[in-house]
Amino acid sequence: MRLSQNFTKTRKEAPADEQARNAQLLIRAGFVHKEMAGVYAFLPLGKRVLDNIAQIVREEMNAIGGEEVQMTVLQPRELFERTDRWDDAKVDNWFKTKLVSGAELGMGLTHEEPIVDAVGEFINSYKDLPIMVYQIQNKFRNELRAKSGLLRGREFVMKDMYSFARSQEEHAEIYEKVALAYARVYDRLGVGAETYRTYADGGIFTEKFSDEFQTLSPIGEDIIYVHEGKKVAVNKEVYTDENLAKLGLNKSELVEKRGVEVGNIFPLESKYTDALDVTYTDEDGNEQSIIMGCYGIGVSRLVGLLAEHFADDKGLVWPENIAPAKVYLVQIGQKSKEAADALYDELTGKGIEVIYDDRDERPGAKFADSELMGIPYRVTVSDRLLSDEKFELTLRSTGVTELLTHEALLAKLG
Amino acid sequence: MRLSQNFTKTRKEAPADEQARNAQLLIRAGFVHKEMAGVYAFLPLGKRVLDNIAQIVREEMNAIGGEEVQMTVLQPRELFERTDRWDDAKVDNWFKTKLVSGAELGMGLTHEEPIVDAVGEFINSYKDLPIMVYQIQNKFRNELRAKSGLLRGREFVMKDMYSFARSQEEHAEIYEKVALAYARVYDRLGVGAETYRTYADGGIFTEKFSDEFQTLSPIGEDIIYVHEGKKVAVNKEVYTDENLAKLGLNKSELVEKRGVEVGNIFPLESKYTDALDVTYTDEDGNEQSIIMGCYGIGVSRLVGLLAEHFADDKGLVWPENIAPAKVYLVQIGQKSKEAADALYDELTGKGIEVIYDDRDERPGAKFADSELMGIPYRVTVSDRLLSDEKFELTLRSTGVTELLTHEALLAKLG
Repeated sequence: MRLSQNFTKTRKEAPADEQARNAQLLIRAGFVHKEMAGVYAFLPLGKRVLDNIAQIVREEMNAIGGEEVQMTVLQPRELFERTDRWDDAKVDNWFKTKLVSGAELGMGLTHEEPIVDAVGEFINSYKDLPIMVYQIQNKFRNELRAKSGLLRGREFVMKDMYSFARSQEEHAEIYEKVALAYARVYDRLGVGAETYRTYADGGIFTEKFSDEFQTLSPIGEDIIYVHEGKKVAVNKEVYTDENLAKLGLNKSELVEKRGVEVGNIFPLESKYTDALDVTYTDEDGNEQSIIMGCYGIGVSRLVGLLAEHFADDKGLVWPENIAPAKVYLVQIGQKSKEAADALYDELTGKGIEVIYDDRDERPGAKFADSELMGIPYRVTVSDRLLSDEKFELTLRSTGVTELLTHEALLAKLG
Repeated sequence: MRLSQNFTKTRKEAPADEQARNAQLLIRAGFVHKEMAGVYAFLPLGKRVLDNIAQIVREEMNAIGGEEVQMTVLQPRELFERTDRWDDAKVDNWFKTKLVSGAELGMGLTHEEPIVDAVGEFINSYKDLPIMVYQIQNKFRNELRAKSGLLRGREFVMKDMYSFARSQEEHAEIYEKVALAYARVYDRLGVGAETYRTYADGGIFTEKFSDEFQTLSPIGEDIIYVHEGKKVAVNKEVYTDENLAKLGLNKSELVEKRGVEVGNIFPLESKYTDALDVTYTDEDGNEQSIIMGCYGIGVSRLVGLLAEHFADDKGLVWPENIAPAKVYLVQIGQKSKEAADALYDELTGKGIEVIYDDRDERPGAKFADSELMGIPYRVTVSDRLLSDEKFELTLRSTGVTELLTHEALLAKLG
């Protein structure tokens, strides 16, 4: 991408009404546009980060047998009445709308009911199970306040998976398989070491815990108690002596930390399948309940978390696999234009994503923008460097700079 | 994909309440799920078709310099009040919703206003233009009736692009560039020959025509008058002697046809940019209006149109580049299981998408499903064929069958 042809620009100041550092940085770098509190549009560079994170999540869900679907935002009232989640007194953060006829509809709050309804049409016998189905799509929550930037949105992008199992044993197997896939996702996103599987409240219809994935962060909204040796944690909401005994954890070994919830997995038992009359017939011809799990990852929340997590005083610092480009190419001077053009063509020809700063700007402004945008490798081509047949390579994460020959540069970026 | 692990199944009958053939076929083949009238969820096979079409559209928009963004479904009322499109008396197919605070919001009817607002933040001088920005996202229209399956949805997937130009000349250049890109999209989707650029009403704020892309089809809702030699058409709404004279078309050479609108491109003049105070400063320091165009392609509508367009009495018939898989592998008998497994691994190892019918079903049922799903190449591996060291290859589009050696089969599918 030639920066002269990209419509976004960086800015010195974030809008005054934006309090969250993740959104301030993303807006200043031109990655997102604030539509209203808790509602952000993704501009070209932000869209690339969002897609890169979504693709990592997709690959890990596919690898364990997840089948991707795309459910709808508009949801029929009737399905949610059958599970007693329609009434605003029961669920207080619905966005609702109306057909011309006056009939009320829900707006993509969550998808258990529509998924059970859709998948249930294909379930008759034990041979049709287990099933794991997921989507990556916008969700809507009518939050009273939304002040955490992309960490808590009124409209946000989520990966939600749902599993359907024949028994508690089969459910438990799937549940652990997904937990391992989640750990791989956080590893690939560069926050594996700081992300703890965390025991949390399982909700009113199960005696089990649910599991949250909490990334340690000073901006976290949750208080968790971390066992560093066992790499597990306990959410404050279930941090009781009784629960710790159940979990075999000793209070003296736990440390209080703040965490950002980057994923959750939930045992749903047969609450939704039973309520919507979706059952299966076992080998003996008997009707049986289907045990469900649901598994969420906040994809746009991760854009916000990772933006803030890796940032430094100069701006964003993206890991290579989610960065909007691998290389930020800075061209300085008059004579080196041709060499920079050639390098841009050469790198993009090799399939390397390059942001080419071909603008008529001061070198300092180009360097500052490369830092604010957080592109992993900065390559500088200038008249002076060219006369020595050298290119300058600077790592965004460490600031380390090297002067390299053309051959050595390509070997590094290959 | 092993069919034994895919949760969807085909069915003999479509639901009684579904009148449109495109939706009947897509539901019977397990590609979509009807959420309510005009609202369809995409199941795994349908999601692949949707994504394949979206990717073709994306590639052609990127090729002409389009930058992809992702706007939001929730839209602020204030922006639409400034362009006088908020009032239901002015725009009668809004879905609206409310924040907890009571403030009304719109739901992704169209995105001119939010796009102008977002892009406008980056436009100051003539150097910042032209800009072409697009998204592929859900749109919402509160249609009174929705009986055409995926052809007219209340919620549907659309590619919408917006261009911002410094002058009428620059606008005209972009407009024609997009029209050519649209023609390439329809060519790649296999309906290039039947799709006509069609003069239509430009709306109340321009004297120009708009352009629709109409695919000839007996199920079309639009009446158009086609000039086959010039490969253009005129929509009935502007089919007057005066307009034909302007267009240099002779009534005697035009033939009345039915068309499905698969795209439209619209001159917006400076209606939205002026109303939202987005202007630019020219070389001489004078403030100037920005000339906009908007360019839509109904991506989910195309799923419906192409489903119905290519279908025959046995079911769907997908062109290879949008099919959910290239090969449908039928395994028959006991001895040939190993050979079929090996072929499946070999083909998928080469990056070929295969639906492997490894189910314990009658051959007739497997053949019927391969036809209903419309997968381009059917490969049969049976005990009998195996003893002759042959594979059977059948083309879905023609029904032509060949017996091939392993080597010849791979050469055909490579």
